[in-house]
Amino acid sequence: MAAQSTRKLAVVVGAGPGLGASLARAFAHRNHAVAVLARSEKTVQSVAEDIRKNGGDAAPFACDVTKRDSLDAAFAAIKKQWPDHQLKAALFNANSPFIMKPFLELKEEDVKPGVDVNFYGAFHFAQVTIPLMLEAGGGFLGITGATAALKGSAKFAALAPGKFALRGLAQNLAREFGPKGVHVSHIIVDGIIETDRVKGMMGEAKQPDSRLQPDAIADTYVHLAEQPRNCWAFELDLRPSVEKW
Amino acid sequence: MAAQSTRKLAVVVGAGPGLGASLARAFAHRNHAVAVLARSEKTVQSVAEDIRKNGGDAAPFACDVTKRDSLDAAFAAIKKQWPDHQLKAALFNANSPFIMKPFLELKEEDVKPGVDVNFYGAFHFAQVTIPLMLEAGGGFLGITGATAALKGSAKFAALAPGKFALRGLAQNLAREFGPKGVHVSHIIVDGIIETDRVKGMMGEAKQPDSRLQPDAIADTYVHLAEQPRNCWAFELDLRPSVEKW
Amino acid sequence: MAAQSTRKLAVVVGAGPGLGASLARAFAHRNHAVAVLARSEKTVQSVAEDIRKNGGDAAPFACDVTKRDSLDAAFAAIKKQWPDHQLKAALFNANSPFIMKPFLELKEEDVKPGVDVNFYGAFHFAQVTIPLMLEAGGGFLGITGATAALKGSAKFAALAPGKFALRGLAQNLAREFGPKGVHVSHIIVDGIIETDRVKGMMGEAKQPDSRLQPDAIADTYVHLAEQPRNCWAFELDLRPSVEKW
Amino acid sequence: MAAQSTRKLAVVVGAGPGLGASLARAFAHRNHAVAVLARSEKTVQSVAEDIRKNGGDAAPFACDVTKRDSLDAAFAAIKKQWPDHQLKAALFNANSPFIMKPFLELKEEDVKPGVDVNFYGAFHFAQVTIPLMLEAGGGFLGITGATAALKGSAKFAALAPGKFALRGLAQNLAREFGPKGVHVSHIIVDGIIETDRVKGMMGEAKQPDSRLQPDAIADTYVHLAEQPRNCWAFELDLRPSVEKW
Repeated sequence: MAAQSTRKLAVVVGAGPGLGASLARAFAHRNHAVAVLARSEKTVQSVAEDIRKNGGDAAPFACDVTKRDSLDAAFAAIKKQWPDHQLKAALFNANSPFIMKPFLELKEEDVKPGVDVNFYGAFHFAQVTIPLMLEAGGGFLGITGATAALKGSAKFAALAPGKFALRGLAQNLAREFGPKGVHVSHIIVDGIIETDRVKGMMGEAKQPDSRLQPDAIADTYVHLAEQPRNCWAFELDLRPSVEKW
Repeated sequence: MAAQSTRKLAVVVGAGPGLGASLARAFAHRNHAVAVLARSEKTVQSVAEDIRKNGGDAAPFACDVTKRDSLDAAFAAIKKQWPDHQLKAALFNANSPFIMKPFLELKEEDVKPGVDVNFYGAFHFAQVTIPLMLEAGGGFLGITGATAALKGSAKFAALAPGKFALRGLAQNLAREFGPKGVHVSHIIVDGIIETDRVKGMMGEAKQPDSRLQPDAIADTYVHLAEQPRNCWAFELDLRPSVEKW
Repeated sequence: MAAQSTRKLAVVVGAGPGLGASLARAFAHRNHAVAVLARSEKTVQSVAEDIRKNGGDAAPFACDVTKRDSLDAAFAAIKKQWPDHQLKAALFNANSPFIMKPFLELKEEDVKPGVDVNFYGAFHFAQVTIPLMLEAGGGFLGITGATAALKGSAKFAALAPGKFALRGLAQNLAREFGPKGVHVSHIIVDGIIETDRVKGMMGEAKQPDSRLQPDAIADTYVHLAEQPRNCWAFELDLRPSVEKW
Repeated sequence: MAAQSTRKLAVVVGAGPGLGASLARAFAHRNHAVAVLARSEKTVQSVAEDIRKNGGDAAPFACDVTKRDSLDAAFAAIKKQWPDHQLKAALFNANSPFIMKPFLELKEEDVKPGVDVNFYGAFHFAQVTIPLMLEAGGGFLGITGATAALKGSAKFAALAPGKFALRGLAQNLAREFGPKGVHVSHIIVDGIIETDRVKGMMGEAKQPDSRLQPDAIADTYVHLAEQPRNCWAFELDLRPSVEKW
């Protein structure tokens, strides 16, 4: 029973097929119970079920990370599910719909989701998870970033500002909570992640190693989560070997 | 009359005492009619009046840049005021209240103004002013940035994400509209700007040249606005000679 | 006679046709006597003569900035020429030959000039000019940087390391000597500068405003040199409006 | 015999006590034969012996990485030692003596080692190791960077330019050789590495986790070396959780 009380919990938000699902699986493999969060009920159920089938511990929690109420409800349910687990890993992988348009054609409703998901979503997620990780004596807050966090290209005004804001927030959090034991990392994914959806839209990759495999990205999150407190990485950039940058 | 039809117009938003007022004065000195925008009726009237007293052409337009309706109403009034002027300079200097708090004490309403003013404000301002500058055959969009656009310090989560987002947006706009003749610059103010309010709160500066003078900053905006199309600066950092950085 | 003793001196190194000559002319127009330095005797004579013809005060000093002895000899001659002038502007615009090769084909002698000119040249130039500017109660050290100072592209290993090193040195100097009154700026030229040599090699520009005009760049150096001590820019990026970046 | 011909080789330069020795041990643990390179005969012998005592395969090669001849001689001896091994990891960890002085007190001989080791050393090392890794069908070139590669502080002019140059070179190499299968990473060590020498000079750390443990840093190099080709990190920053940055 004692052992039970020190079991590790990971929460993944944006846990859809692709990187989110890989993160959920990867932390399950490293002996975390995994709370699988995304907007779609169907998505989270399928990801959690897949983990359980493979012998892991996971449960689905459909919620909208941009709304504090929704996130609070999910965490109340998580607490019920695993009352004695300690939150050791919080993975923010939520994404807004990708809208690429000439700036003057953008409406406020086109740019709002990028800010809502990337900034407000991460803000709420950090507010809910950091106190739990402080209670647990420390933990890992991994945040998925993008090329658009470093460079604002033409026609990317629905994406870059939110990604820039998220990076700024990640730096705020790393500097405030690092000394308190919460390791915040901002992982810049610079390239196309291979998913079924990408293959459906774009076909098979024409060149080997030209698309990031989500399981490979997840391995780096695990490495970061396991770094000892004397040696933490805040930021890194991941890309395919053949990517131009 | 012909001459009249090619007169230059500058619009300053966030034109309160300090940098905003200096920008308004500086562009008035360079022969622009100046539309003075800020939330407070009293503020914009006093800034515009001061310019007119000194022989310049200026008018006040109280408005809330975070709301498209409010901005549209202001620009309708500006058009009425100067029907034949061409918009050649749009200066975004709006600021949100400065809130510095431990992250876990921040409420959503604490962080919202930073995003509303810096991102949505600049988004609306750019959407309204860029078409007018394209019509005018080109112009200058100067955006006031901050240290917090480059570095997210502890306890700055109400400021840095908005300033990061604004910088991302500035890059988006520069890359999309540069080739079309709109010169977008992001001016990073790294230090304390000397204003009456700052003197009231912090007293006189203890060291000479340790606070940025708003008129000096405004001179750099004018220089940027006057760069020819073959040689534009996108970003620069301004700080007092004695500032540690 | 008293007035004579406070006349201003500018030193330009790398004062060949193009940006160097424009810098020399621009500071001459702002009432500096100008010491024109470059490796070639013919070059410096022609640039100095051109300034004198136009009513400015200038003199040529052929020297090799990568060698301290050669630079010391030039400054001894400068002192003789203008014994009572004060050094107020030191402009480092030296360039190494441009070698773009696959990395494995580079020899040590291919990469040495990039380091010699950009790092050792700037090191010696700063060591010689900073004490003179401190004596003069302050001055401006303007350093020409390049895109390759920020991004190391494939096949640029003969250029980027030297330009990175020069940028690092510029930061060292700005932080150490800013509080003492020497304004150090690193001006990133991101694009092709229009010169006779460029026109000879590449023909006329196909697109208007697609090449930086050296006189326009020089205007920005002058602006930086004239910023008051409360408001200094350290770094900015200059590019044609139509440049992709 | 066939198996023999596919054995993996790692070369560590700057393999003195501290990070270099940890890198050598870490790659030995991951089944690499390890060539241990540093200037001091005594150092490399002790590091290699320690690995062999623990069951690893290692051999010492005293050499001066700033001199191509010396490096070539070392690689000839390495080839003799392990004629059928394939070079899969090349780790550049050489360091110049740390000299922190006011800029105007620096002599050319003070700044030369920083450039010689960081730039010329890495240049030669890359020229010698990259062809061997290309032959081996790919490999990992890990380069130890420093805070001074990103920020040039006052009095750091003997260090920062070399570290900036090294970072520029790392980018050149990553962009040129990534598509050919050589994974180049630049690992920024931002903090004090705990070594016997550091403890001797500064005493025990006053705060837990305030000094980077060299074995922890080495674990991250191993992670990078093992990333698959679809998902490579170029750059990351490592620091103690309590470090201010």
